Amino acid sequence: MADSSAPTRVMMAVNESSLKGYPHPSISCRAAFDWMLSKLVRSNTDGFHLLFLHVQVPDEDGFDDVDSIYASPTDFQSMKQRDKIRGIHLLEYFVNQCHQLGIKCEAWTKQGDPKEVICHEVKRVQPDLLVVGSRGLGPFQRVFVGTVSEFCVKHAECPVITIKRKANEAPRDPIDD
Amino acid sequence: MADSSAPTRVMMAVNESSLKGYPHPSISCRAAFDWMLSKLVRSNTDGFHLLFLHVQVPDEDGFDDVDSIYASPTDFQSMKQRDKIRGIHLLEYFVNQCHQLGIKCEAWTKQGDPKEVICHEVKRVQPDLLVVGSRGLGPFQRVFVGTVSEFCVKHAECPVITIKRKANEAPRDPIDD
Repeated sequence: MADSSAPTRVMMAVNESSLKGYPHPSISCRAAFDWMLSKLVRSNTDGFHLLFLHVQVPDEDGFDDVDSIYASPTDFQSMKQRDKIRGIHLLEYFVNQCHQLGIKCEAWTKQGDPKEVICHEVKRVQPDLLVVGSRGLGPFQRVFVGTVSEFCVKHAECPVITIKRKANEAPRDPIDD
Repeated sequence: MADSSAPTRVMMAVNESSLKGYPHPSISCRAAFDWMLSKLVRSNTDGFHLLFLHVQVPDEDGFDDVDSIYASPTDFQSMKQRDKIRGIHLLEYFVNQCHQLGIKCEAWTKQGDPKEVICHEVKRVQPDLLVVGSRGLGPFQRVFVGTVSEFCVKHAECPVITIKRKANEAPRDPIDD
């Protein structure tokens, strides 16, 4: 078990907080990241290579803040530009942390349905492990919210670790994150 | 992230092979164990403390090999004794491997419904991580077989990692392991 072997490639799906908005990472994914560093990577920073994926969900109506039915192609263009910048800022948080700790990493964004895109990227990138944070909702809430983590455990073509948010880290409304 | 911090306590649920019988570990749990060593522990053997739990399922009719309706209390007694010895032999496999690699470990057996007992033991022992192997059955087979791993991901009070058996390690009948 010499660590001259190739580093363990850990892919991590990160998302933004629904409470604070971009570029703040969600409570769940920050908790998952911290857990991974302290419990898996530990002092063995050379043994791991982290891959951060942020999947951006296109707005269904195309306008989350703007209430207007007069839309021009320019509006869509600037919106896409804005989303892209936000996604990059989110990834910057994780890349900076890795840089400070001396852990090699890569980061990229994709658009689409998070659970589908994550599993697709696992197939493409073939990491050794996928880490996903979870709000840890109860069975009742899960029906309405649906969980990305549950889908990935079943469908991702690599081992998956689910890190539930701790009860004391949860905001008042459990759907927030 | 100095590794003077307490080691990461990884609990692993291990079971016997349905193909070869005791004391041979199942394909799934052997694969999960090997994966954990090569991808998580790596050379950092001091940073991890492994906890092996084997849950023995009591036979429903009390006799798997013996076809007899004339049962005495002595029969049950010797059966329990035999099961206990088998469980200890199974755990011995993992303990020996850890000993050779210089990884600290503990091992114990419990009786009952594996998914319930595993989650109960997680609550009692409070590991940092639970590792469970999975036969990786398709959605159709899963309906009939039920999976311990799926239950643990939802209910265990710690992060859970599911390691699916590789397709090329699967026996002809996917329910065997």
